[in-house]
Parts: sequence; C-alpha cells; structure tokens
Amino acid sequence: MTSYAAVVGPGGAGANDAAELLTLAEQVGRGLAGHGVIVVTGGLDGVMAAACRGASSVGGITVGLLPGDVRGAGNQWLSVALPTGLGELRNGLLVRAVDVVVAVGGSWGTLSEVALAVRTGTPVIGLRFWSITGDGVDPTAVLEVQSASAAVDAALGAIRR
Amino acid sequence: MTSYAAVVGPGGAGANDAAELLTLAEQVGRGLAGHGVIVVTGGLDGVMAAACRGASSVGGITVGLLPGDVRGAGNQWLSVALPTGLGELRNGLLVRAVDVVVAVGGSWGTLSEVALAVRTGTPVIGLRFWSITGDGVDPTAVLEVQSASAAVDAALGAIRR
Amino acid sequence: MTSYAAVVGPGGAGANDAAELLTLAEQVGRGLAGHGVIVVTGGLDGVMAAACRGASSVGGITVGLLPGDVRGAGNQWLSVALPTGLGELRNGLLVRAVDVVVAVGGSWGTLSEVALAVRTGTPVIGLRFWSITGDGVDPTAVLEVQSASAAVDAALGAIRR
Amino acid sequence: MTSYAAVVGPGGAGANDAAELLTLAEQVGRGLAGHGVIVVTGGLDGVMAAACRGASSVGGITVGLLPGDVRGAGNQWLSVALPTGLGELRNGLLVRAVDVVVAVGGSWGTLSEVALAVRTGTPVIGLRFWSITGDGVDPTAVLEVQSASAAVDAALGAIRR
Repeated sequence: MTSYAAVVGPGGAGANDAAELLTLAEQVGRGLAGHGVIVVTGGLDGVMAAACRGASSVGGITVGLLPGDVRGAGNQWLSVALPTGLGELRNGLLVRAVDVVVAVGGSWGTLSEVALAVRTGTPVIGLRFWSITGDGVDPTAVLEVQSASAAVDAALGAIRR
Repeated sequence: MTSYAAVVGPGGAGANDAAELLTLAEQVGRGLAGHGVIVVTGGLDGVMAAACRGASSVGGITVGLLPGDVRGAGNQWLSVALPTGLGELRNGLLVRAVDVVVAVGGSWGTLSEVALAVRTGTPVIGLRFWSITGDGVDPTAVLEVQSASAAVDAALGAIRR
Repeated sequence: MTSYAAVVGPGGAGANDAAELLTLAEQVGRGLAGHGVIVVTGGLDGVMAAACRGASSVGGITVGLLPGDVRGAGNQWLSVALPTGLGELRNGLLVRAVDVVVAVGGSWGTLSEVALAVRTGTPVIGLRFWSITGDGVDPTAVLEVQSASAAVDAALGAIRR
Repeated sequence: MTSYAAVVGPGGAGANDAAELLTLAEQVGRGLAGHGVIVVTGGLDGVMAAACRGASSVGGITVGLLPGDVRGAGNQWLSVALPTGLGELRNGLLVRAVDVVVAVGGSWGTLSEVALAVRTGTPVIGLRFWSITGDGVDPTAVLEVQSASAAVDAALGAIRR
C-alpha cells in the first residue's frame, strides 16, 4: 500500500537558518517521493512549499491541506490542494492523514503537529526541530536526525515498522 | 487551475436502483476526469467507489476523505486516501474542498452534503437525488439532470461560472 | 444524568411564517428547559435565539456553538457561548453533542443538521420542517409533530428511550 | 461579558508530581470560577477533573469538550459535557473557545494545546509546564508562574488586556 508522510515546518522566513531549512525540506521531500511516498503538507509557503517542490521534482504526488477556504492560497507544487477552512485545526487533520511526520525546523504550528503526532502514536522525525524538556517528557518521542538523508531513512524505517 | 468535483451518493446497496446508480456514478466519474477534473469522494464503497473507478479508468486523480482513522478502509481506486477520523463531519470537509458537488442517488449522508453545499454556495447537480419541499426551499438550489453526461456538462458549466 | 437537546432552525427571517416560528421555538426551548434539559443551539439569531430565550426564561442552561471565532456574535440568552471557528461544520458538532434534535422550521443549514442526525442515529423531531421524498427515504426518520408542546413531549420521549 | 479560561494538563497520573498538580489545578479552577470565569477543559480526569472540581466547589460553570462520542466519559464536576467525537482535534476547539489558557503540568496533549494557543494568539499561562527551546522560540510566549494564585492573577490580567 502507498505510504504517506507529512513534512511540517515553519511557513515563514523568521528563523536565522531559513534558507538552510528550505534546502533541507526540499531534500526531504525529494527523498520521500523518490521512494514512492506521498508527501502531505499544510500547503502553504516556506518548509511546506520546499518539501512539495522537492517531491514534485521527481514526479511525486503532493497533497496540501490548506487552513483557509481558498484553493489558490496553496503553493504551486501541489498535485492536490484541499481547502479545509479549519484554520490551525487542520494541523491535527494533517497528522491523522499520514504514517509518519517529519519536522524540519521549528515553529509553534509545527510544535502543535509534533505534539499531536506523539500524543496519537504517529512516529515523528525531527531535523533542526525544537527541544522539549520537563517532567514526563520521553526523550525518544521525537527521533532527532542531523541530515535530510537521515530524515528520509528514518521516516521510511518508521513506515515499515 | 485544476478543478475539483465531489461525487456523493449512497455507500450501500439498499436502494432499488442500486446497480443503475453505480453505472451512473462510474460514468460521471469518468466524464469529469476526462475533462481533467479531480474527483473527490468520501472514499468508501457504493457510489463513491464507482465514481473513483470511472475516473481512474481514464487516468484521473481521485481523492478519498475517509470518515475513520484507517487508510485501508478506502476503495481501491483512490489515488490519495486520507483518513480524517471525523466521522460524518468529513461530509462538510468534502463539500468545502470542491468547486461543485454531483449527487448520484440519495441517502441521509448524501443529503447532508447537498444541504451544506447549498448553504455555503457550492453548486450542486442532482441525478436521481431526493426531493426537498417546504417553505423557503429554492427550487433551483439543486440543478436536476437526467443523465450522467448531463451531470458532467452541468458540473463543468458550474465550475466555469 | 442531565439530557441535552438541540433546537435547530432558520437563523434569518426569510420564511413567510417567521414570527410564528419564533414563537414556537421559544415555547420549545421553555418546555425543554422546564424539564431540566440543556438546550444547545448554533448560538445565533432567529429560531436559535428564540429557543434560548424560552429556555432562559425558566432558568435553563443554554449552550451556543458559534460558527465563527467571535464570542460576541452569540445571542444574549446563552449561558455558555463557544466560538468554534468551524463555519457550517459546527452543525455536525451540534448534532453529536445532543441526545435529540428538534427542528423548528426549515433552512438548508437546518436540513444539514437533520440529515446528519438521522445518519448518525440521533432522534429528530420536526415542527414545520421541510419534507424529503425519494427512493430509500424512511418516512419515520423525522418524527413530525404539530405543536410546540407535542415537540417537547416527543423530544422527552426520545431521550428516555 | 463573561470570560472563559481553559485549564489544560495531563489527564493521567504518570508524572512524579501528580498529586501536587491536582491540588494546583483545583486551586486554579476555584480561583478562576471565584472571579466569574467559566472554566473549560477537555472534560476527562486528572488535571481536567481537578480544575472542574475546584470551580464547581464555588458554584462556577464548568464545560467539558470530550474527545469521544459518549457523554458519560466526562468527569462528575461538569455543568455542561459536550461529546465532540473529534479525538485529539478537540484540543484545537478548546483553545478557540476560550480567552486564556492555563497549563498545569505537561503532557503531549497539553503541549498541543499550548502550541495552538500561542500560534493563534490566545494568551497562555504555564504552571509546572514543560520548557521549549530552539531557534525562533519567543521566551515570553508562555507566561511562567510559580503558584496557583499567580496563575489565576495572570489569567485574569490576560483576559482584561
């Protein structure tokens, strides 16, 4: 059966390492799609668009679950652009729709997706993702990797388990 | 820009004219996909599967918004199968995601989709759909047609408007 | 355990019998609350506000599930006003939250709520509601009544079953 | 206008300081309700129940947005128990419905609520909440306090702003 991976990350360019994040996200999208994985994102710009661009460059299928009501808000590399009108509630829908979540960079929206994924048992791979510490945090909940290729390998491994 | 049409209708086989409905749904799916329209359904059996089978037969893209949490519940003709875990609330999501709704046959779930579409201004084409009468019902709210080809033509017309 | 009833119906004043509908909705709300039933509505005007006003007049608890993001859009008779930001998807949430649905008058939004309720097995009482006919329509799916007091009695009966 | 605060936190008893968290949550619920604030929670056990118990002890209104379909799963201190059937997506609904979020303790579900609140501009108060660090984290996004009374004061201050 076809597998599905979410690539999540900041939509904007606020971070210091924004350009590097986009390169990483594009590599992750390309790597996943190269293995036949459908790439699902929030459909907008930044990391979302970069992952779609990468997946699209090797002929992969990309799906965007847009927060608003307008299809045209989706980035240009989406095979399928679905306006949900759910606002940030679409983050939870995105997590549900996939077999694994890859977070590239951090943002509060990204954090909500990672938290929901861990909560519901969907595997999460983190690449330049934020750190979470505190009483009861399982340090293995997010599998931290250091490169795009390692993120792809870890995602494929999580899907196969 | 690519257009999206929902094909909605009964998932089960209770209706007297079930076999005929499936044939009609398959023709509608094939006709829409033949014009490059992405066909979105609830992803399950009956009219949903028939529309996907038709669209798939001409190489079209089909999307299933599944009510449950399990991707495997989707029919075999889905290009993209998205578990939503929303139950019947996914009916509203389906309506939001498309440019036009084609109802083939009637059921209570189908009726909820048609009603939400009319309520939110998405055009609705009805083929063997139920009748709704009462104070304040606009008789033109659902455009009734008598054949699969007329349904496809009406849907394409509604998208272009 | 406390019971919950949705009172649904047109929010606007388009119908010929709008004033009469508001009177009926107020009587239904009052009657339900008089029996300790919590009245849940879509929180806006028209039938929704009238039902809340009636329930509030006898000290009942009223809950509004608002379609938008702004609490202030709720009518003034709400004990609890919850903005959902779901738009018309909140109609499905409303149906899920209650033990019985009473439709006073008809509209497309009301129809979506009734259809979802029948689809998911929540009992529906109809007072001046629309008629639905077609292949496979169970004529007993919506219990039609002719007065506010009959609607209250039927709703209480459905809750107790 | 009446104000609404969410009290969020772990539902289970895994944390080392579970008993202390429950005491804090109860004090927060009581303090908020004592100022006329409606307390909204996820409706289940642990911190959610403790906050409701506290609010209920001073006659406050408590609302539970339950993840499942069954009202009976709600804790016994709920004035209004609403089954949403949304699973963990109800976390986003909870955040939308309130004017301020108070997190007592940490868990992945709690983290998803805090992240969505920060993302959407709802003020967040943290009491024994987890720490989040990384590129782009605004350290003032969650206002950390050290006691239940400070949490109540901060929540009231955030509402009034």
